[in-house]
Amino acid sequence: MQKKDIMSETEKLWWERNDLGYDQEGELVFAGRTLTELAEQSGTPVFYYSASRVQDNFSRVLDALKKTGLDHQILYAMKANRFAPLLTYLKMNTSCGVDVCSPEEVRHAISCGFKAGDISYTGTSVSQGDMEELLRYPDLMINCDSLSMMRRLGKLQPGREIGIRINPAMGVGYGSNELLRYSGDKPTKFGIYLSELDEAIATAQEYGLKIIRVHFHTGCGYLNDQLAVWEEILNHCITHFLEKLPGITTVNLGGGLGVPLKGDDMPLDLNAWSNVVQRVFSGKPWKIQVEPGTYVVKDAGVLLLEANTVETKAGHRFVGVNGGFNLAMEPAHYQLPCEPAPCSFAGSKKTCFAEENLTETTVAGNINEALDLWIQGLPMPEIQEDQPLAMVNAGGYTAAMSSNHCMRGCFSEYLLL
Amino acid sequence: MQKKDIMSETEKLWWERNDLGYDQEGELVFAGRTLTELAEQSGTPVFYYSASRVQDNFSRVLDALKKTGLDHQILYAMKANRFAPLLTYLKMNTSCGVDVCSPEEVRHAISCGFKAGDISYTGTSVSQGDMEELLRYPDLMINCDSLSMMRRLGKLQPGREIGIRINPAMGVGYGSNELLRYSGDKPTKFGIYLSELDEAIATAQEYGLKIIRVHFHTGCGYLNDQLAVWEEILNHCITHFLEKLPGITTVNLGGGLGVPLKGDDMPLDLNAWSNVVQRVFSGKPWKIQVEPGTYVVKDAGVLLLEANTVETKAGHRFVGVNGGFNLAMEPAHYQLPCEPAPCSFAGSKKTCFAEENLTETTVAGNINEALDLWIQGLPMPEIQEDQPLAMVNAGGYTAAMSSNHCMRGCFSEYLLL
Repeated sequence: MQKKDIMSETEKLWWERNDLGYDQEGELVFAGRTLTELAEQSGTPVFYYSASRVQDNFSRVLDALKKTGLDHQILYAMKANRFAPLLTYLKMNTSCGVDVCSPEEVRHAISCGFKAGDISYTGTSVSQGDMEELLRYPDLMINCDSLSMMRRLGKLQPGREIGIRINPAMGVGYGSNELLRYSGDKPTKFGIYLSELDEAIATAQEYGLKIIRVHFHTGCGYLNDQLAVWEEILNHCITHFLEKLPGITTVNLGGGLGVPLKGDDMPLDLNAWSNVVQRVFSGKPWKIQVEPGTYVVKDAGVLLLEANTVETKAGHRFVGVNGGFNLAMEPAHYQLPCEPAPCSFAGSKKTCFAEENLTETTVAGNINEALDLWIQGLPMPEIQEDQPLAMVNAGGYTAAMSSNHCMRGCFSEYLLL
Repeated sequence: MQKKDIMSETEKLWWERNDLGYDQEGELVFAGRTLTELAEQSGTPVFYYSASRVQDNFSRVLDALKKTGLDHQILYAMKANRFAPLLTYLKMNTSCGVDVCSPEEVRHAISCGFKAGDISYTGTSVSQGDMEELLRYPDLMINCDSLSMMRRLGKLQPGREIGIRINPAMGVGYGSNELLRYSGDKPTKFGIYLSELDEAIATAQEYGLKIIRVHFHTGCGYLNDQLAVWEEILNHCITHFLEKLPGITTVNLGGGLGVPLKGDDMPLDLNAWSNVVQRVFSGKPWKIQVEPGTYVVKDAGVLLLEANTVETKAGHRFVGVNGGFNLAMEPAHYQLPCEPAPCSFAGSKKTCFAEENLTETTVAGNINEALDLWIQGLPMPEIQEDQPLAMVNAGGYTAAMSSNHCMRGCFSEYLLL
């Protein structure tokens, strides 16, 4: 049989998959669209999001939760990507609620079609003005991040059902591992620590607040290697926190499900993840909530830019593009790359991506800061000036965090249905 | 004589100065205004910029340049702060031009009253569209950052006078020092390296471009300790680059003049700086341009926020405020703090700021990220929930780089005349 599909495993680049990859003509296809054409139509910089990839990602988490046999709910973390059409799509096509962290996000979620009862608020440094706005929604699930917040909420609406965000990090002795490195050596600002739990319980009693939910702050971006530690932390939370809180109906495990961002990252094994959740919570009376953001949208978006400068400087190859780190902070600030790929190539894929035809390339943005690099030393095929490039894995924590630094903040966004 | 002014040297906090400090009533006064009152009037988050401090900072650089006896021009780096009233004020009250790095910044500078001839463009990864827009301004000073840019500019407007940005970093052997650490171990994306200089000269000849300016990319944020290295780099640039470029009329030394951001930083000795410029350039036929951004605006702005959460977590004191690192990226991402100070205090300053009354405090923003901290472990006096705080040194690289992350991007800006 003649090879029709270039997506054979042997020639696949690490990020290629069914709905994102090169076709027989050397065109990069995403969600059934040819990216070169989209770049021409809409101009660049432009973000394209695949609705069906979002749906698939969501469904994968949902299936993993269903497998546990536990009552469950997914709350999409909208800070990852708040593009309104995407939020409305999620509301119409999935069972998810929304995880928010500011009153403006509450309003935005509602404006996109969600009901207050679908929305879970877990924020930090909540002002009195924030509080008054949040309390206008009787059905909003509010998780308190501090004793101060509990006290101020209690004064305004005694008797309300609330959640508390707990922070298991300190005093557990996990200081050196990946998950808790997120929290650092010092306590973070997040949540109520074990040392303050008794006071939290007393504060709830004082104001007649009913603590019915616990939100776990247990890190972010975890993949398989961290699952064992995660399980340990969950068990620790149950023993030390949940057993002191008899009124709990719901346990929110937070976000943190990671996606591969580099060639040697392995995708999160949702089966193993599901097994952890089942082992820890089976037989317990609690509904389980999870708050994926990255996992739902990160690999469902590409950012299209255009190369404008291809040049060797002091022996190193640079490709300059028409968008900088102000459009996507994670590559420069967090070393979480959006790998650049040409939207098309000439000739055979095998030749184009053969090791001897790749050059270590640094892809640089158009902001006057040395930090403004998309990726350093990536082996890439020949790139032409004016050639569109796709930054893969640009669906989350990109546009949502963008700035107008150097007045380079102009871009558009499209949902591909 | 009774002490009228609390600004006596003995009681001064490190960042206090004539136009920023506590008065006898314990109120923080900035540019003659009481910040507590401003916070009440305008609400928070809000940036206030002092026009007279901007003017003073500008004049200090101007005087230092005048002292060299060299022909000179100051180009304010507008990426530091592009608040339109501030730009118009600078145009009307100073002799400065503007340093820009995008066509949008050109348009904005002109919209604020600058003429194209006042504007110097030094950008990176310049697209074909950018180029076409830049070339609409015959008087705009354009510095080319790459051979590619020279070639593309030459094709569109052969014969134009241009500058080139040169990068002295590689092959000089300064790899371990502060200034060049900005460039890192690898070559940066900026400028034309010595290894490409001959090709740059040939490219100019090919397209009839006249290279009349050289822009030095030599780091940023330097203070006194780095002046010796800076001088060495300037001399290196003259020997290796300028002597090969006989048509040069103007040398642009770039930006980089730093300001103290921590208690133990010493202010830049502009006298020493001026001496360096004089030693290096005296007797040379070139006009000297400098591009201060930080130096002009950084300490001329405060960001007013409000404390909303004061709480001890796991033994550490946290103060949560109603603005996060999306409003000012430098504290969290670059460890360049905007030191928080209460807008007022009760009792005597001596008692309030006495060591035994200070507690190590972490000031945290309202964004759901662990990184969202204004400062960690700063000894601070008692802070009340609802008390306004001033973040000092918030005049540059703050609002200009702000994002709407978590939809917490709402703030206002005021120029105090």
